[in-house]
Amino acid sequence: MAKEPIQVIEPVKITEPEKVELGKMLFFEPRLSKSGFISCNSCHNLSLGGVDALTTSIGHEWQEGPINSPTVLNADYQLAQFWDGRAKDLKEQAAGPIANPKEMGFTHELAVATVASMPAYQARFEAIYGKDSVNIDNITDAIAEFEKTLVTPNSPFDLYLKGDKDAISASAKSGYQLFKDKGCATCHNGPAVGGTMYMKMGLINPFHTDNPAEGRIAVTGNEADRNVFKVPTLRNIELTYPYFHDGQTWTLEEAVNTMADIQLAKSLTEEQTADMVEFLKSLTGEQPQITLPILPPSNANTPRPVPFAK
Amino acid sequence: MAKEPIQVIEPVKITEPEKVELGKMLFFEPRLSKSGFISCNSCHNLSLGGVDALTTSIGHEWQEGPINSPTVLNADYQLAQFWDGRAKDLKEQAAGPIANPKEMGFTHELAVATVASMPAYQARFEAIYGKDSVNIDNITDAIAEFEKTLVTPNSPFDLYLKGDKDAISASAKSGYQLFKDKGCATCHNGPAVGGTMYMKMGLINPFHTDNPAEGRIAVTGNEADRNVFKVPTLRNIELTYPYFHDGQTWTLEEAVNTMADIQLAKSLTEEQTADMVEFLKSLTGEQPQITLPILPPSNANTPRPVPFAK
Repeated sequence: MAKEPIQVIEPVKITEPEKVELGKMLFFEPRLSKSGFISCNSCHNLSLGGVDALTTSIGHEWQEGPINSPTVLNADYQLAQFWDGRAKDLKEQAAGPIANPKEMGFTHELAVATVASMPAYQARFEAIYGKDSVNIDNITDAIAEFEKTLVTPNSPFDLYLKGDKDAISASAKSGYQLFKDKGCATCHNGPAVGGTMYMKMGLINPFHTDNPAEGRIAVTGNEADRNVFKVPTLRNIELTYPYFHDGQTWTLEEAVNTMADIQLAKSLTEEQTADMVEFLKSLTGEQPQITLPILPPSNANTPRPVPFAK
Repeated sequence: MAKEPIQVIEPVKITEPEKVELGKMLFFEPRLSKSGFISCNSCHNLSLGGVDALTTSIGHEWQEGPINSPTVLNADYQLAQFWDGRAKDLKEQAAGPIANPKEMGFTHELAVATVASMPAYQARFEAIYGKDSVNIDNITDAIAEFEKTLVTPNSPFDLYLKGDKDAISASAKSGYQLFKDKGCATCHNGPAVGGTMYMKMGLINPFHTDNPAEGRIAVTGNEADRNVFKVPTLRNIELTYPYFHDGQTWTLEEAVNTMADIQLAKSLTEEQTADMVEFLKSLTGEQPQITLPILPPSNANTPRPVPFAK
C-alpha cells in the first residue's frame, strides 16, 4: 500500500504492570477530589470512549466546565495535552484537574495526604518508587503510565490498512478517499488521526460558538494563536460525541459538514457525507478491557471528603 | 461447629450470564440520569465496597441526599431494600433512584427512550426478554440480576466458619465471642450479618442525629415504627464507612461503642472494642471482579443529557 497519512495503532506492550495497576487505581480514585465523588474516570469514562459525552463537564459542586472533555483514549499519541496544548504530556495533564477548583476542586497537598494515609497505597508506591514516595509527581506519573495503555487497536480501518481489503465497506473506502482528497488528512493524520499539530478553528470560514475558549493564545500569548486548538484525534470518534471544543455538535454528519465548510470551504453531497461518516466509524477500535480496581479503605488518618460547603 | 448466628456466603452461580451482562451495562449507564453523569455505580461504587463513602450521597445538580447510601454488596440477602425497607426487592429498588429528583433526576419514560434508542441495547433486550422489550420493568430486572451477583465470599471469617481455625486472629475470635455474648448477633445475623429484620435505632438509649429520616414509619404509618430501620449488613463493614443511616460515624471503634450503648446499654473496654473491630474486619470478603462494560454510543434518536438547567 502506498504511504498513507494514517498509521496503524498497535496493541500496547506493558513493561511496568505494577505501575500501570497503581495508575489505574488512582484513575478511578474519587478521593483525589475534594468531594470524594469525582475521579479521572468521571469525565474520561472508559465505558464511554474515554469521555463524559457531555457538552462540557460537570465539576466540583456541579460547576459547568469551560470546554469539552477530550478522550483519554490514544491520548499519548498527541504532541501535547488539553485543547490548547498547555500540558506537555499526560503526567503534566493529570495534575491539572485534581487542583482545578472547577473540576476536582482539591489540592495536591490533600491528594497526597489522602493517598499516603492508606497503607495499601504506601506499599505500592514503595515497591515502585521507593520509600516515602507518595507525592504528586509519582501520583501523576502512575496515572500517566496507566493512560498510556489506553489504546484502541484493531479498528476495522487498521485491519484495512494492514491489508484486509474487506475490513471496511465500499462506502468507508470512498469516505477515506474523500478524506484524503478534500484535505482532511492535512491536519488529521498520524496514528491517532489527529493530535500531531495545532490549527486554527475556522481557518477559512468562521466557527460560531458562545464558548469563550481562546485556544493556544492562552499558552503562547501570541495573537496569531487565537482560536488555534490542538487538532483532536478522530480515533473512536463515533464514541466521543458531542464534537469540537465547545461540544455543541452531536452528530458526525453535522461535524463533517462544519469542518468541510470552515476549514476547507468545501461542501459535500449527502452521499459524500455518508461515506465520510462510514469511514470515521471504521476508526472505532477495540476498547481497553478494564478490570475495575478495588480501592483500599480510608482510615482515621485519611482526610475526610468535603462534598458540601457548610 | 455448633450452630452459629452467621452463615457462610457462597460464591454466586450465574445462570443467566447475558442478563447479568446487560444488567452490568445498565448499572454503569450514566445515561439513565437526567445529567448523563450519574449511574448506579456513582453511589454504589464497586471500587469502594459498593458505597460512595460519603455521609449522604450527591445527586442531580449536586443535591445533598437524605440518607447514607447502603452497600449493594450482598444486598440480595436482605429482607427488603432501602433503610426503611420500602422496596421489596432489588428490582423494585432499582427503579427508585432513576426517577428520584434528588438522585438521578430522570423519568422512567426518558430512561426507556434512552436505552431503546440504541440498537445494541435493543438487540440484547430482544435476545433476553423478546421483541420490543425495552421497558422499565426489564431494565430494573436486568440491573437486579447483576446486583444479585455482587456477593463477597471467602472472607477470613467465612474460612473460619468453614473450619480453618487460623483464618482469623485470636483477637477476632475474642471479638466474635463478644459479638455473640453482648447481644449484637440478636440483630446482626444470617449470611449478610444483618438485613434479616427491622430494629429501632436507639432501642435503649437515644441515638442523637440531625438526620430527619423517620425510619419504617414512613412505610407503615405505624408510630411504633418511628426510628425503626433495617438492620444493615456488616459484611465488608471496613469498606462501607461512614456508618449508620446518618453517615456521621467514621470509625468502626466509634460505631461499635455507639451500638453497644444505644442498643444494648453496655460498655466495652478498649481491648474489647479492638477485638470487636478485628472481628468486623474479618468480614471483608473477596470483592466482585468487574470488567468495566463498554456502552453503546448515543445516536440522533437518543435523548440528550440535560446536565445544567438553562
